[in-house]
Amino acid sequence: MTKAAASPALDEKDTGRLEAFSDGVFAIAITLLVLELKTPGPSEDLGPALLRDWPSYAAFLTSFATIGIMWMNHHALFRLVHRVDHALLLLNGLVLLGTTVVPFPTALVAAHLGHPGGRLAAALYSGVFLFVGVAYQFLWRYASSRRRQPAMLGVPFDNPAVMAIHASYAVGPVGYVAALLLAFWSAGASLALNLLLALWFALPHGRRAEIATDSSG
Amino acid sequence: MTKAAASPALDEKDTGRLEAFSDGVFAIAITLLVLELKTPGPSEDLGPALLRDWPSYAAFLTSFATIGIMWMNHHALFRLVHRVDHALLLLNGLVLLGTTVVPFPTALVAAHLGHPGGRLAAALYSGVFLFVGVAYQFLWRYASSRRRQPAMLGVPFDNPAVMAIHASYAVGPVGYVAALLLAFWSAGASLALNLLLALWFALPHGRRAEIATDSSG
Amino acid sequence: MTKAAASPALDEKDTGRLEAFSDGVFAIAITLLVLELKTPGPSEDLGPALLRDWPSYAAFLTSFATIGIMWMNHHALFRLVHRVDHALLLLNGLVLLGTTVVPFPTALVAAHLGHPGGRLAAALYSGVFLFVGVAYQFLWRYASSRRRQPAMLGVPFDNPAVMAIHASYAVGPVGYVAALLLAFWSAGASLALNLLLALWFALPHGRRAEIATDSSG
Amino acid sequence: MTKAAASPALDEKDTGRLEAFSDGVFAIAITLLVLELKTPGPSEDLGPALLRDWPSYAAFLTSFATIGIMWMNHHALFRLVHRVDHALLLLNGLVLLGTTVVPFPTALVAAHLGHPGGRLAAALYSGVFLFVGVAYQFLWRYASSRRRQPAMLGVPFDNPAVMAIHASYAVGPVGYVAALLLAFWSAGASLALNLLLALWFALPHGRRAEIATDSSG
Repeated sequence: MTKAAASPALDEKDTGRLEAFSDGVFAIAITLLVLELKTPGPSEDLGPALLRDWPSYAAFLTSFATIGIMWMNHHALFRLVHRVDHALLLLNGLVLLGTTVVPFPTALVAAHLGHPGGRLAAALYSGVFLFVGVAYQFLWRYASSRRRQPAMLGVPFDNPAVMAIHASYAVGPVGYVAALLLAFWSAGASLALNLLLALWFALPHGRRAEIATDSSG
Repeated sequence: MTKAAASPALDEKDTGRLEAFSDGVFAIAITLLVLELKTPGPSEDLGPALLRDWPSYAAFLTSFATIGIMWMNHHALFRLVHRVDHALLLLNGLVLLGTTVVPFPTALVAAHLGHPGGRLAAALYSGVFLFVGVAYQFLWRYASSRRRQPAMLGVPFDNPAVMAIHASYAVGPVGYVAALLLAFWSAGASLALNLLLALWFALPHGRRAEIATDSSG
Repeated sequence: MTKAAASPALDEKDTGRLEAFSDGVFAIAITLLVLELKTPGPSEDLGPALLRDWPSYAAFLTSFATIGIMWMNHHALFRLVHRVDHALLLLNGLVLLGTTVVPFPTALVAAHLGHPGGRLAAALYSGVFLFVGVAYQFLWRYASSRRRQPAMLGVPFDNPAVMAIHASYAVGPVGYVAALLLAFWSAGASLALNLLLALWFALPHGRRAEIATDSSG
Repeated sequence: MTKAAASPALDEKDTGRLEAFSDGVFAIAITLLVLELKTPGPSEDLGPALLRDWPSYAAFLTSFATIGIMWMNHHALFRLVHRVDHALLLLNGLVLLGTTVVPFPTALVAAHLGHPGGRLAAALYSGVFLFVGVAYQFLWRYASSRRRQPAMLGVPFDNPAVMAIHASYAVGPVGYVAALLLAFWSAGASLALNLLLALWFALPHGRRAEIATDSSG
């Protein structure tokens, strides 16, 4: 039994379980965010209490949009990756580490925006997204390396979908470094930039999702 | 490699991951609801303490039934949709955004029903369901558009299952607008209408689930 | 397009999504139980504080074992069911409703065992398990009805696996009624009976898991 | 209908659902860890408050890495196991029991490291990992037993992947016993050893992930 004997069915199953586990982590992280929203008690005047808590809702929306984009990223990337090895599992683990942490800085921003700790909270918030962006870079560069034989990608290296990911992945870390630096000037502006980045990534760059890929490509 | 080269296998896989991620979010949101039920301490008289907390149980049941219906909706819809693109992922994201938020207004209703904030809480509660109903409208109209080529639906536009969804989707938003308006008159009546809407949607309209669909249709 | 045109592939996909959603709910409910375990603060003497909290651990273990058995039940049942309709989705929803509620009476037992509210807490705890047992009865009777055409089961009605489920399902509700009644005499004995029931169900009755089933059977 | 009639497709489906449920539990347990991280209030000086909470972050990282390794273990093991029976479901349940408990001793270590209860907390923490390691031993020995007919493994007993798991599984329990004993001397050293063990297991022992396996092997 040699490497060459590996059947496509086996590889498929492997990617399948990595995707299932990752889907679970993304789905849980995005759904746990709601637990950070505080419920005012019945003795409080509900309307003003909710309005006063707007930083929580802004942070919730930004984190929801960003984790959603991360999942779409993962989806787009593993449409192209057809084989998994040990190092890829570990690099995927770094992406998931950053993703599961997101509810924590989200709560920090919700509690400290407009208070002295707001800038530090916003910097940590952007820092976690930067961590995920860099982890995706490593994951993608490893998976799309031309030297790896047999190739991990199920498509040729000059496929437009591959090129589009190369281009879009270069933007993420730059944007999150900017949001991190901006935090030291204004926590609110940094949070707004993070939301804008999520919306920008939500646009269909390079028509990625419409480009067909198949294993015979 | 052109669009036409997209294999059915690929499209299947794509729908599969969107469904897996969505299933995860629905399953987590419906299970997190229980965390909002408060445990009376050992120094309290347990029976009366539990009875006093009936608004929590009413809100829990209504939210459980509504998220359950939302999932059945998603299930019925993606039996018909055989292809996913970028815009469909985003519209599905709006459905999931509304779904993950549900535990928050549920907690607001549980805490404020019978208190001055009850009407606002019930209005926000119906408002979140209205948001999900409208997001489903957009998702369905996009997916069932006759202009999209190749079609996203795996069945003809005049299939009875498609017609049944058209009809049942028109009711949701109207019902939730009514529940929203009713909240300003009576929070309890609005909550009851939300529960009735969930039960009404649970009925097998148009025998949806029994209508066969296949990709050769 | 008629009912008869329903392809096996479609039915398979349907069971698949119901199973995926249910697996998610079972997995989340069983994992959320740990959140009810209280962490003593650093100013407390850790050893005695943990020992004093033994009812929490007893309730945790009993609930973990019971939800685990419920999942194995679901697994065994849907090995035999090959078709899903609207009513089956609703009956499955009742099973899931009971399952997601489990962490709440678990917390009640943990907080009130050894206090005046202990008996009521234990009765509610057994009552939730009774609810799930009865919901499984309805689900199974509906799915295994001889009158339903085409049959929902993928095996003949006299298959030993079907017979074994008939026999084992008759025990569950009786056991949980006994645990419910026992609670009014002793909360601790009722909790112990619930744990024993879970262990009894964990035994391989009728060699269920080893009996082969296939759709050509 | 006899055992011999069991189709590969059926067995495949069985492993599939056990893996899906287990993936769900691992994904939820690893994502719930973040809920144990405390958010300092807006009246606290954020920087020093976060620095003071370093034991929480150390425990978070160690638990994340350990649950991640447990999942990779499960993944590697069920690449080889092609058949499920009742006892295997129960042994898998013991692995999941230990996994869902992890957030609790993690919170104990986070709260008590540097306090009088730190050693007991660290001992319980290592004890839970030891429990999981021993449960994996039983699971693996049962699945890889030469006496079981038909075999549960889809590969020959002298396959290098099987040998590599035999070797690596012998290390786990020894390492966790050492971490447990070390806890009575120094809680911090015990926590550090647990992190080192996770990193050691993350190395690609025996090139496990690259060894091809197929059911015809």
